[in-house]
Amino acid sequence: MNKQQALEVYTKQRRKMLANRYASFVCSWDMQTDAAPQSVIADSEQMGVLGEQEYELFADACFREAVETLCGCAAELDEVLRHEVTDMKKHIDETAKIPKEEYAAYQRLTAEAYPVYVEAKRKNDFASFLPYLKKVVEYARKTTQWLQTDKLSGYDVLLDMFEPNYTQKQYDEFFALLKEKIVPVIKKATAKTESVPEWATQPYYKEGQRKFCEYLRDVMCFDKSRGIMKESEHPFTSGFGTEDVRITNHYYENNFTSSIFSVIHETGHALYEQQCDKSLNGTLSYGGASMGMHESQSRFYENMIGRSAAFWKVHYKHLQQHFPVQLKHVSESQFVKYVNRTERTFVRTEADELTYPLHIMVRYELEKMLIEGSLQAEDLPAAWKEKFTQYFGITPPNDTLGVLQDVHWAYGNFGYFPTYALGSAIAAQLYAAMQRDFDVEKSLESGTTQRINEWLASHIHRYGCSKYPDEILRLATGEDFDAHYYVDYLVKKFG
Amino acid sequence: MNKQQALEVYTKQRRKMLANRYASFVCSWDMQTDAAPQSVIADSEQMGVLGEQEYELFADACFREAVETLCGCAAELDEVLRHEVTDMKKHIDETAKIPKEEYAAYQRLTAEAYPVYVEAKRKNDFASFLPYLKKVVEYARKTTQWLQTDKLSGYDVLLDMFEPNYTQKQYDEFFALLKEKIVPVIKKATAKTESVPEWATQPYYKEGQRKFCEYLRDVMCFDKSRGIMKESEHPFTSGFGTEDVRITNHYYENNFTSSIFSVIHETGHALYEQQCDKSLNGTLSYGGASMGMHESQSRFYENMIGRSAAFWKVHYKHLQQHFPVQLKHVSESQFVKYVNRTERTFVRTEADELTYPLHIMVRYELEKMLIEGSLQAEDLPAAWKEKFTQYFGITPPNDTLGVLQDVHWAYGNFGYFPTYALGSAIAAQLYAAMQRDFDVEKSLESGTTQRINEWLASHIHRYGCSKYPDEILRLATGEDFDAHYYVDYLVKKFG
Repeated sequence: MNKQQALEVYTKQRRKMLANRYASFVCSWDMQTDAAPQSVIADSEQMGVLGEQEYELFADACFREAVETLCGCAAELDEVLRHEVTDMKKHIDETAKIPKEEYAAYQRLTAEAYPVYVEAKRKNDFASFLPYLKKVVEYARKTTQWLQTDKLSGYDVLLDMFEPNYTQKQYDEFFALLKEKIVPVIKKATAKTESVPEWATQPYYKEGQRKFCEYLRDVMCFDKSRGIMKESEHPFTSGFGTEDVRITNHYYENNFTSSIFSVIHETGHALYEQQCDKSLNGTLSYGGASMGMHESQSRFYENMIGRSAAFWKVHYKHLQQHFPVQLKHVSESQFVKYVNRTERTFVRTEADELTYPLHIMVRYELEKMLIEGSLQAEDLPAAWKEKFTQYFGITPPNDTLGVLQDVHWAYGNFGYFPTYALGSAIAAQLYAAMQRDFDVEKSLESGTTQRINEWLASHIHRYGCSKYPDEILRLATGEDFDAHYYVDYLVKKFG
Repeated sequence: MNKQQALEVYTKQRRKMLANRYASFVCSWDMQTDAAPQSVIADSEQMGVLGEQEYELFADACFREAVETLCGCAAELDEVLRHEVTDMKKHIDETAKIPKEEYAAYQRLTAEAYPVYVEAKRKNDFASFLPYLKKVVEYARKTTQWLQTDKLSGYDVLLDMFEPNYTQKQYDEFFALLKEKIVPVIKKATAKTESVPEWATQPYYKEGQRKFCEYLRDVMCFDKSRGIMKESEHPFTSGFGTEDVRITNHYYENNFTSSIFSVIHETGHALYEQQCDKSLNGTLSYGGASMGMHESQSRFYENMIGRSAAFWKVHYKHLQQHFPVQLKHVSESQFVKYVNRTERTFVRTEADELTYPLHIMVRYELEKMLIEGSLQAEDLPAAWKEKFTQYFGITPPNDTLGVLQDVHWAYGNFGYFPTYALGSAIAAQLYAAMQRDFDVEKSLESGTTQRINEWLASHIHRYGCSKYPDEILRLATGEDFDAHYYVDYLVKKFG
């Protein structure tokens, strides 16, 4: 196969892959927002077949040959295509190392494990989930052996799947720094828990929340001609190229700030997708560079911008207009203080900005031991409680609020959690770089985040996933990843 | 390939076809209900690729061999599979007769023709659409030659594509009967146009209409655990098996009966899909037997049930409760009379029950001449006006309200229109058969259409498309198609 032939095969197959991705994107969106309960059950089977179809496209021998041919003349390709085929070859090579029957059995295993996990969490019954978890851990351990290279072995193999070019060494340093600098801050900041003010738990009617969230989405310049916002059980963002980016939200009448920070968070993700360079549409290089990089965008908007006094100086009066009764006697500074309160809690997804990375640290350390083999699945509940108590000074009363709270491990996603903390740290590093270019807080006085959006578009978003995240970070900030920015930020804010 | 191998190949390929159908079903639903305007444009390309993928599955040589092998031992197959492979072979053979390059060129042509048609209709500019229409007609004429058999030639070839086993001979007789018996009734019934009563054009707020439509959907026992109702520009129904059936509606504040009869019409379609035998899920034999048979269900519920005095005797008070101000002084019989008024109008989609088949007759006769070659595309506007005037006694003031009003011909769908009239006629024939089994109007006193649904489920719906529509009609009524039931029904109601 010569270069020209390889290009043709590659382009043709990529076109099909994109159509399949589009189908999965819309069908999955549909299941999470529209489809009736029985429909979701029946349609799951079709989703499985669509997934198989995508795998077949990827595993096709002719496609593999085309990718190899193109990698062989990588220097002659444009930069985007070069990265795309290089990354594709990496995945193809990895997949080839996994025994087919093991892979298929694992797909069935995780499909079966999910409902068992859901039931186990509901009933606080770790034992019923344990047989599945054991097998999932076993597969993860085998994966590290199948995929190990000169450069990567052990837990690093899994970490690389979610965040390319970030290794255990870097995460260890990162979490060590957090342990040293942030644990004391948390101890101090959460020493006396302030009670939630009465005005914050009053009912805030859903329609008002929805309207204010639409206002915030507009403040952040989400392009409504190329995307929509709906409701779902858990807020999420999904996108297909720059032209179709969707977010969801959830409105709790007795917890009105939840929808506010969810919409800011999800719009942060959405801007990353909408602001990719349009030339990446039709390639596989659109969308976020990695989990951590994506999370850096959502958390930057949610925490650094959305919880800042400068932001609410402009927008608090609008919130008050939507809820004149509830917020009549609540000042702007009271509100800002409330949305930045910190507290030790059991559940990661409800954690505040300061305590959040500690939740991740617990998971990171347990995962590391699980994969190394120094911890076994059956010992996880006890290990969880011990580690949690050590860092938080409080002990989860049960497994539902402990080891069973997250779905990730049921899906076998070991190596995923650390990217959440990494995202926050990258956000802080980007914030510092942005601040060197212009006065970020002052730019909010214009009423929108446009100036910030533009900076992120030109420094991060435009690349899509046409480069690895570490390279994008270097291009954007002139530096390698440096966790000190994050620690400094947290200490300054909460110390 | 032996029978066992053929069965395996067939089943495997069918599984993929179903997943593709599911993807197209959801993505098309999404485009018509959710997706943002720019997203629809970008996503159209992906829909095209999904369509190609479905065609590839169908055109696959190995699949063809499997179908042929199975047809070779059809007697050994169960009834559903026998019909399915026989019908599949018919389509494969037909497709094989169409020159590949002609087929591909035609796909591009209709894709291009659609936006030109929309613009031409908007601007009342037939001339701009004519070059496309000419080519579309040319292709239809060629199709009749490519696909002609001992049994079918000319227009019959096209008719058979939309309604298997119904030929020009039957349609000619049908429309001749309509011309003889119904044209005089229409002349008389529409002699003096009654003005629309003032209460009918008052604003009926959307939320009230929506709630009442949800009530009607429940009256008809639509299973909400297996389907949903949303809004779209034009009401439609789409389904994927019995477990996922969706309808849309549209609410006009100044024309409140539109949403009422749309929801009854669409729920009629939906019941057909929901009440198929569940064993047909996972096969290609779920869903309606033909266009005409599907339309017979929607029109039966809409006209025979939904416009009957017996229906409103039970439900009018609920409508009044939703609109107490607007309907305060409107009696039940005034309302029933209003929703059964008849009037000569230009546009098919706005036509009433009595004049509707005449709109179809105009199209049927013009199509026949176009395909025969006795009428050319450029002469259509004049021919349309002439024929319309002849049957209706009024002349469309322009082409937008005349020959350009329907999209069907832009898509090359010649042979489609007559199924609409056939549907109404089948509905009347089914009504007579049902009436022989139980007192249909009396059954409505129970407050729901359950008894009717059950009759249609056991006589029509359960078969899905596992039999041809003429056979289903014979099984359901003990007779061949007989247009007299329809004519008698119309004469009795409007004569």
